[in-house]
Amino acid sequence: MEIKKFIEENESRFLDELFSLIRIPSISSQKSHKQDMLACAERWRQLLIEAGADRAEVMPSDGNPLVFAEKHVSDDAKTVLIYAHYDVMPAEPLELWKSEPFEPVIRDGHIWARGADDDKGQAMIQAKAFEYMVKEKLLTHNVKFIFEGEEEIGSPSLNAFISKHKELLKADVILVSDTSMLGADLPSLTTGLRGLAYWEIEVTGPNRDLHSGHFGGAVANPINTLCEMLATVVGKDGRITIPHFYDDVEDVPQAERDMIHQIPFDEKKYMEAIGVNALKGEEGYSTLERNSCRPSFDICGIWGGYTGEGAKTVLPSKAYAKVSCRLVPHQQHEKISKLFVDYINSIAPDYVKVKVTPMHGGEGYVCPIDMPAYKAAEKGFEKAFGKKPLAVRRGGSIPIISDFERILGIKTVLMGFGLESNAIHSPNENMPLDIFRKGIEAVIEFHKRYE
Amino acid sequence: MEIKKFIEENESRFLDELFSLIRIPSISSQKSHKQDMLACAERWRQLLIEAGADRAEVMPSDGNPLVFAEKHVSDDAKTVLIYAHYDVMPAEPLELWKSEPFEPVIRDGHIWARGADDDKGQAMIQAKAFEYMVKEKLLTHNVKFIFEGEEEIGSPSLNAFISKHKELLKADVILVSDTSMLGADLPSLTTGLRGLAYWEIEVTGPNRDLHSGHFGGAVANPINTLCEMLATVVGKDGRITIPHFYDDVEDVPQAERDMIHQIPFDEKKYMEAIGVNALKGEEGYSTLERNSCRPSFDICGIWGGYTGEGAKTVLPSKAYAKVSCRLVPHQQHEKISKLFVDYINSIAPDYVKVKVTPMHGGEGYVCPIDMPAYKAAEKGFEKAFGKKPLAVRRGGSIPIISDFERILGIKTVLMGFGLESNAIHSPNENMPLDIFRKGIEAVIEFHKRYE
Repeated sequence: MEIKKFIEENESRFLDELFSLIRIPSISSQKSHKQDMLACAERWRQLLIEAGADRAEVMPSDGNPLVFAEKHVSDDAKTVLIYAHYDVMPAEPLELWKSEPFEPVIRDGHIWARGADDDKGQAMIQAKAFEYMVKEKLLTHNVKFIFEGEEEIGSPSLNAFISKHKELLKADVILVSDTSMLGADLPSLTTGLRGLAYWEIEVTGPNRDLHSGHFGGAVANPINTLCEMLATVVGKDGRITIPHFYDDVEDVPQAERDMIHQIPFDEKKYMEAIGVNALKGEEGYSTLERNSCRPSFDICGIWGGYTGEGAKTVLPSKAYAKVSCRLVPHQQHEKISKLFVDYINSIAPDYVKVKVTPMHGGEGYVCPIDMPAYKAAEKGFEKAFGKKPLAVRRGGSIPIISDFERILGIKTVLMGFGLESNAIHSPNENMPLDIFRKGIEAVIEFHKRYE
Repeated sequence: MEIKKFIEENESRFLDELFSLIRIPSISSQKSHKQDMLACAERWRQLLIEAGADRAEVMPSDGNPLVFAEKHVSDDAKTVLIYAHYDVMPAEPLELWKSEPFEPVIRDGHIWARGADDDKGQAMIQAKAFEYMVKEKLLTHNVKFIFEGEEEIGSPSLNAFISKHKELLKADVILVSDTSMLGADLPSLTTGLRGLAYWEIEVTGPNRDLHSGHFGGAVANPINTLCEMLATVVGKDGRITIPHFYDDVEDVPQAERDMIHQIPFDEKKYMEAIGVNALKGEEGYSTLERNSCRPSFDICGIWGGYTGEGAKTVLPSKAYAKVSCRLVPHQQHEKISKLFVDYINSIAPDYVKVKVTPMHGGEGYVCPIDMPAYKAAEKGFEKAFGKKPLAVRRGGSIPIISDFERILGIKTVLMGFGLESNAIHSPNENMPLDIFRKGIEAVIEFHKRYE
């Protein structure tokens, strides 16, 4: 059957299947969703069997279970391992959603829901391309699937799992749809990813909330202290001040910087889209370099004291922050994690108690563009989008990609179909139906081309 | 009747009356408690009539109503105006209370509840001393009561009310029980109060929460920016850096500093009581000077980004803080309020939008210790506590005290019976029964001595 016809005839079923996954709020960061994780894994198991896998099973791990499936064609053929994740980010702030995050709707040609893109929507693209290949008996290589349920919390159980199941996961290349393109008309393949390190900081001042009139001025306020400490992490020049932080950061090669400068990029439109009047980052680097090839430090959350209505005066006992660094290839997240803990402890004043807890992390990744699988992916994009995709580094982190390389010795091709406007991790996450269709077409072409 | 016998015979009724007030959660900072404010005012009206007032009424204001009551003895006699407030602070964090904040209990000889001290408990001391004077026909001066319901939110409607009712509130001195003593065995009268200014700051970065991987390093994070701005407000020397902030701050006279140094104060015990290893404040001043005669800057609350369980990476759209300064006499809160707004706006970078909203404020106050009413109060403490009270400046703010002086031309005597351990504004607020009894005795002696 012709591909476009296959998609057209089956689309309402594809969407029903995707919606059945989205309706399960598989939020890995919240313990109350434990049962949803199991339900979501089981639903994927069924869907992968229905799509044409010989076998599929939900496999236990130290955390949420994983879904493994495979279609074996020949012992002599190559094997493609398709990785995705079935967990999603929390949907808060809920009041900013135009429709329910876990009740998907089609509106203006987009699917709107948490997970519409990241990563249920993109994983469904892979499943449906695979279904076509099986149904049309076009598959000439083996296909394996491994879908995990802890990506959004840093895949804490995955390394142990893949170490234990090296034989099961044996493959020639890993294919992942969990990244985004430069634009709907500007297809691109991600060839670099940043790493991540994440910490929670707790600052304790007095042993209880104090009256700021009776104690203010004489007793250190833990929120003031937290702000003062965090304010030192990034210098005036936009560089992170933690000693030895840049030791392993490679200068971006001039050739790569030249390529980055060729990427069509309208800084004015970029600012308009996110509603800011000016940008801020490390001196000496462009915006596209800053958000892809250079490390960053962000306070992801902060809280302490009175945050309710009105004006309560208090000198609080505690202040907290969740902070993270995006890292570049060669920076080891565990080393950075320790450097940060040491740095904060070194500047922590004696009038407060400071506790820094590393949460999770992952290394960056670089994909060579001369790999056969990369070439096949390139052809896929070209077929579906009508132009050759650009090879670009992206600023996000998929720690597992570098772990796969380290533990399994397999390189990954990042064949992602996301768009900036898909608003992943934010309210009103969405996926244009047009991109969903083109994605399936592109992955089918990948399978046809990959040898 | 002998005073101690009067208290003993009537104490269970006194406590029933106090508990009936405490059970009304009259939290002025939360709009949902509007009805409780009315109920609490009405309850006070009944209690003041029952205590012996000729008349008492609930009077409307632009905000919560006030309770006015009076006992007229003679046109030729002096008049004492007793001010108190019937509103209380929010009880959060609720999980730290050992018993329900609005269900008072007697435990270990203390009354435990929100308002047990501040200011329902202390106001009840005044009411019961008044009741004794009336019942025993000992009152030789007129007594008026004015109880307001917005003290904890900065008394926004009181100035208009007292300006409108100058004749009704005419008096020779104002008596207030809303401050604390140095200790149960160290009675003291407050002769100075700090002023207050309070602001809320909103920092807006991008127009929505962004993926910190895709944008981190290239787009300013509003929490980082908020921390950086707030970190500049206090310098390394503990002095506030806002230009012209100290213009109206008088140097504490050496004589007063000498007196402060005579106050028994064990810094080690002070630190132990609040659980800190070191203190922090303005260089060149002692702890007691820092928390009473010198201004301070505290971040009372801060919030933004992801504050839930786990590790969500996000570059948030918004960050907020509630901040306040304690001011010293002669600093005008409206001037300081503007200086702070101007300062924050002057350092606000162009990559974020910053909004600073002044919330409320009040001036500081100084009470001369040669006033007849001050002398009478001194005698009251001496009678009840067995020693002459020290005259001390305190760090808290009761903005209304300076407003009374400015608008009505009347000085106030701060005859407060609180203790540090009463934990006002904190979980497990309480009042020792022993202090409650001594307070009544002291105020009765005040009435007997005041001429």
